[in-house]
Amino acid sequence: MADTHVRRRAALRSRLRERSLDALLVVDQRNVRYLTGFTGSNAALLVHAHDEPGDEARTVFCTDGRYLTQSAQQVPDLERLIDRPCPPALVVRAAAGTAYRRTGYESHRVTVEELDTLTGVASGVELVRAPGLVEELRMVKDDTEIEALRMACAAADRALADLIEHGGLSAGRTEREVARDLENRMLDHGAAGPSFETIVAAGANSAVPHHRPTGAVLHAGDLVKLDFGALVDGYHSDMTRTFVLGKPADWQREIYDLVATAQAAGRAALVVDADVRGVDAAARDVVERAGWGEEFLHGLGHGVGLEIHEAPALAKTGEGRLSAGMAVTVEPGVYLSGRGGVRIEDTLVVRDGDPELLTLTTKQLVVV
Amino acid sequence: MADTHVRRRAALRSRLRERSLDALLVVDQRNVRYLTGFTGSNAALLVHAHDEPGDEARTVFCTDGRYLTQSAQQVPDLERLIDRPCPPALVVRAAAGTAYRRTGYESHRVTVEELDTLTGVASGVELVRAPGLVEELRMVKDDTEIEALRMACAAADRALADLIEHGGLSAGRTEREVARDLENRMLDHGAAGPSFETIVAAGANSAVPHHRPTGAVLHAGDLVKLDFGALVDGYHSDMTRTFVLGKPADWQREIYDLVATAQAAGRAALVVDADVRGVDAAARDVVERAGWGEEFLHGLGHGVGLEIHEAPALAKTGEGRLSAGMAVTVEPGVYLSGRGGVRIEDTLVVRDGDPELLTLTTKQLVVV
Repeated sequence: MADTHVRRRAALRSRLRERSLDALLVVDQRNVRYLTGFTGSNAALLVHAHDEPGDEARTVFCTDGRYLTQSAQQVPDLERLIDRPCPPALVVRAAAGTAYRRTGYESHRVTVEELDTLTGVASGVELVRAPGLVEELRMVKDDTEIEALRMACAAADRALADLIEHGGLSAGRTEREVARDLENRMLDHGAAGPSFETIVAAGANSAVPHHRPTGAVLHAGDLVKLDFGALVDGYHSDMTRTFVLGKPADWQREIYDLVATAQAAGRAALVVDADVRGVDAAARDVVERAGWGEEFLHGLGHGVGLEIHEAPALAKTGEGRLSAGMAVTVEPGVYLSGRGGVRIEDTLVVRDGDPELLTLTTKQLVVV
Repeated sequence: MADTHVRRRAALRSRLRERSLDALLVVDQRNVRYLTGFTGSNAALLVHAHDEPGDEARTVFCTDGRYLTQSAQQVPDLERLIDRPCPPALVVRAAAGTAYRRTGYESHRVTVEELDTLTGVASGVELVRAPGLVEELRMVKDDTEIEALRMACAAADRALADLIEHGGLSAGRTEREVARDLENRMLDHGAAGPSFETIVAAGANSAVPHHRPTGAVLHAGDLVKLDFGALVDGYHSDMTRTFVLGKPADWQREIYDLVATAQAAGRAALVVDADVRGVDAAARDVVERAGWGEEFLHGLGHGVGLEIHEAPALAKTGEGRLSAGMAVTVEPGVYLSGRGGVRIEDTLVVRDGDPELLTLTTKQLVVV
C-alpha cells in the first residue's frame, strides 16, 4: 500500500511542476487519504513538487494529537507535524523555509475565511489557487481502488439477494423497514456502512427520484425502487434496482423495458475516449424516441470512488472524455408523477474493450 | 412551525441591519433549514434585511427541480426560485433589482472558487463577508429545538436501557456488534439515525478518546466506553457512559469516581453569564488536583443542535458567556494509555437556575 501512495504523490508532482508550483497544500480529507492512506477525520498535507519517491523530505503530513498513534502507523514514510488546525500550521511551516515560494491550495475547498487565516501566516509564500488537481488524478482508479469498489459492490449484491431470499421485500412492510433490513445485510457482508442514505420508494413514491424512506407500506402491484450502496475501505458502491410486487401491469412492464434498453445503450457507450455527453445521449435518445424524454429527470451517471458523486459527470452538461480505469454509474430513469417510476443503475469500470460490470444483480424484471 | 421560522428570520434581520447589510445570502444547509424548515439536501436563501413578518416580498428561497413538491409544502410562505446551482442564481436575482446593494454572504462556508463564481454575476451588488450570523442565533435554542433535543436524548437513553436489559453489553461480543445493536435500538425508539459514528471502546481501547468500533472482543474486567447519540428532526443528542464488565478494579473505580466528580462540577458551573473557559476550568480543576490533568485530553464540552458540534465551545480556548437556552455537552474524561479510560457525558440546556438535564441515564458506576 505504501508504494501505491508514493506513486500517487509522484503523479501529483508532475502536475504541480507543469503549473510551476513549488508545492500543494491538500486540505480535502479524501484527497489526503488518497495520497497517504490516512483514515482519520482531521489532517492536511503539504506536497513538495520537486521531492522524489524515496526522498520526500520536503513533503509534510499534519494531524492533531488524537491521531498520534494512528498516523504513525498509517503514514510512516512522511514527516509528521502534530498541530491543530493543520492548514495554517503547514503554511507556517512553508513560510519558515525557502522551498515553498509558490504554493498552490485547494481553492475549491478552502473557504474565504480560511484563506484569510492562511494569508495571515503566509509571509514570503505566494498562495496560488489550484482547484481539483487531486480529483483529476482520482478519476482514473488504480487496481487497489477497483478492488475496493468490487468488494463494495459485492456487499450490496449479496445484501439484496439475502433480502429477497428472506422475503424482506414484501407487501405489508414499510419503506423504512426495508431500508433498515437492507443496510443491516450490507453490514453482514463486510460493509462499514451504507455509502449514502438508502432509497426505498414504493408505489407513487417511486416516481420521486430521490425519495427518502417513510412509514409508507408496500402494496401488491407496487413498483418498488431500491437505490443503495455499501462503503468498503472508503469506497462507495451505487446500484438501483426496481421490482414489481406481484404481476406487473402493462404500463409498468413498458417503462421497465424502456429503461432497461436505455441502460444497456448507456453501458454500451462506455468506451475509452467517448465524450461524456455522448454517453448520456446514447441512453437519453432511447427514452426520448419512446416519448418519455421529459420524464427522465436527471443525468445518466457520475463517477464513484472515495466520494459517492465525483467526476466525471455523464450528463448533458458534463465535460471531457472517458479513460480506461474510470469508475462510473449508468442510471437512466423514467418517472410518472403520481403513478410510479423505474430506475436501473450499475457501477462499472471503463476498460479497453467492454466495460467491467461491478454490480452483478440481474436487471431482468424480478417479480417478488 | 411557520411562525417559528418567521420569528427566526426577523431575529436575523435585526443583525443584518446592525451591520448595514441589505441582505444575507445563506448557503449552509443547516442554516437554511433553521430559517425555513426545508429539509432537502440542496437550497439557498436570500434574506432581505428590511422585509417584515407578513411581508417578506424581497426574501427568496431557491432549490432545484428534485424538490419542487417538497419545497412547496415546507416553504409555502416565501417566493421560490427553482434553479441550480442556487447561490449564483440568487446573486443574479439580487443583481437584477436595486434593493440588494450590500449583500452579505457566509464567507465561512463559501469557498474561494465559489466566491469567484458569485462575483462574476454580482454586477452592481457588493458582496460582503458575513460569517457565522445564523450560527450565533442558533446558539440559543427555542422551545421547538429543545423539544427535538429532548426526544433525541430520550431515544438514546431508551436504546441504552434496552441494550443492557437484553444482555447486549457482555463479554464475548465485539465492539462492532455492540455499536450496531445500540444503533438499531435507537432506530426502534424513533431516531432517524445515529447522530454520529457510535463509539464502543473496550479495555485498552477505552483510553482512545475517539476510538472507532473494531472486531475487538469485550472481556470480563474491561472498562467499556459508549459515546453515541440519536438524530431526531435534524437535532443531535450526545451522551457517553462508561461501564465495567464485572467487578471493578480499584484503579477503575478511582478514575470513575474522579471523572464523575469532575462532571458534576462542570454541570454545576452551567449558569447564565458564566465564562465558557470558567466552566471548562470547574471540571478540569478537579482532575488536575487529583494529578490526572495530563490525561484529560480534550475540552469539556460543546454546543449541540442541528450540528453535533457547534458553538459555544466549553474549552480553554473557548470564547464568550453562557445564555439561557444554550444546549451543551459536559464530558470530562481521563485516559490511561494502554489500560483504559473513563468519560461521562451529558447533554444539558442552560437555564436561569439549574441547567435542564436531557440525558437521563444514571451516572452511577454500573457493573454489567
